[in-house]
Amino acid sequence: MAKTIQFWFEFASTYSYLSAMRIETAAQAKGVSIEWHPFLLGPIFADQGWRTSPFNLYPAKGRYMWRDMERLCAARQLPLVQPDPFPQNSLGAARLTLAIEDHAKRAEFVKAVYTAEFGAGRNISDPNILKDCLKTADLPSAILSRAQDPDVKAALFAQSTRAKELDLFGAPSFLVGDELYWGDDRLDAALDHAASI
Amino acid sequence: MAKTIQFWFEFASTYSYLSAMRIETAAQAKGVSIEWHPFLLGPIFADQGWRTSPFNLYPAKGRYMWRDMERLCAARQLPLVQPDPFPQNSLGAARLTLAIEDHAKRAEFVKAVYTAEFGAGRNISDPNILKDCLKTADLPSAILSRAQDPDVKAALFAQSTRAKELDLFGAPSFLVGDELYWGDDRLDAALDHAASI
Repeated sequence: MAKTIQFWFEFASTYSYLSAMRIETAAQAKGVSIEWHPFLLGPIFADQGWRTSPFNLYPAKGRYMWRDMERLCAARQLPLVQPDPFPQNSLGAARLTLAIEDHAKRAEFVKAVYTAEFGAGRNISDPNILKDCLKTADLPSAILSRAQDPDVKAALFAQSTRAKELDLFGAPSFLVGDELYWGDDRLDAALDHAASI
Repeated sequence: MAKTIQFWFEFASTYSYLSAMRIETAAQAKGVSIEWHPFLLGPIFADQGWRTSPFNLYPAKGRYMWRDMERLCAARQLPLVQPDPFPQNSLGAARLTLAIEDHAKRAEFVKAVYTAEFGAGRNISDPNILKDCLKTADLPSAILSRAQDPDVKAALFAQSTRAKELDLFGAPSFLVGDELYWGDDRLDAALDHAASI
C-alpha cells in the first residue's frame, strides 16, 4: 500500500470538484496511485444537526465560498456554473460510481459528473445527465440500472460508515496511512506525504 | 491605499497564529504594507447560534485542526502547545492591541501574545501574561490599564461591527480592496492580489 492516496469525495462538494480535476496529474508527478472513494456527507452533517450544506446554513461562508471558487477556477482555467439546487442530490452519482468496476473508467466518470455539475450547472440527480456522463466516460448506459442493485446500495452505505470511522467531517478528504488531510488546499501536502512513504 | 493588506485576526484563533508569525516577511517580499485588525469572532459565532469554537462544537473537525496545526507548525519550526481552556478569552488582548498606537509595536505585541498562547500554552486572559507580552514588545506595562478606557472599548466594538459589515465569518481574514480571503492558506493569494494593484 506504499505510495497510495485515498481520495474521499462527495459529489455535492465544490472543493471536491477542484481536486477531482487535478489529482491524477498531481499524483502521477509524484509516483502516487489513487483510490477513488465516493461517500455521502449528508449522514455526517445530520449527526451534527445540519440538514443542508454549511454554505447554505452560514450565508457569509457560502458567499465567500462561491467567490473563492470563482477565483480558483479562473486561475486553473476550469469552468464554473452554480448548479440549482445547491447542494445537489448526489446519491445516484455516488452509487453509480461504485457500480463501475474498472477503476480508470470510474475516474473518468467522476470527472464527467463534476464537470456536468459545476462546469455546466447540470442536475446530477437527473438520470439523463448521468447517462451523458457515462457516455463521456465511454461506459454503457446499462450500468445506470446497476445503481439500484442491493450490493451497490450496500457498498455506498459501507463507504459512509467507513467515512465516519475515519473521522471524516468534510470533503475532499485525503487519507495517507493514518494521516488525514482535509480540503483541496491539502492535496499537495497529502501527496508529498504519500510519496515519502 | 495601493499595495495594502488588511489582516483581520482573532487572538483565540489557531490559524491566525500561523499568519501573524509570517505575514510581515511575506508582505515585505511583495512590497505590501499591513494593517493589523484585531476583532472578536464571539459575536459573529453567536449570531450563527454557536456558543464556543466550531472546533469544540464539531469534535472531528477539532481533532483534525490540532493535527493539522501540529504538521504546519513543525514544517514552519513554530512551537505549538494547546492552551487550556480553548478557546481562550481574547477580549483583553484585543483591547490592549488597539490601545497601542505605534503600529510597529502593535505588531510586536500581537506576535508576543500568539507566541505566549499557542507557542507556550499560556492563558492570555491573565493580566500578568499580557504584561509579559508588553515587555516582550518593549512597551510599558502602564498600557495595561488603557485597555479599560471607554475609547479603547468602543474601538474594539467598532472593529467587530466593521467585521460583520465586511461579511467576515472566520479568522484569519485578509481584505485587499473589496476582495476577501479567508484562512492562512489564502495569505499568499491575498498578498499577490495586493501586490498587483
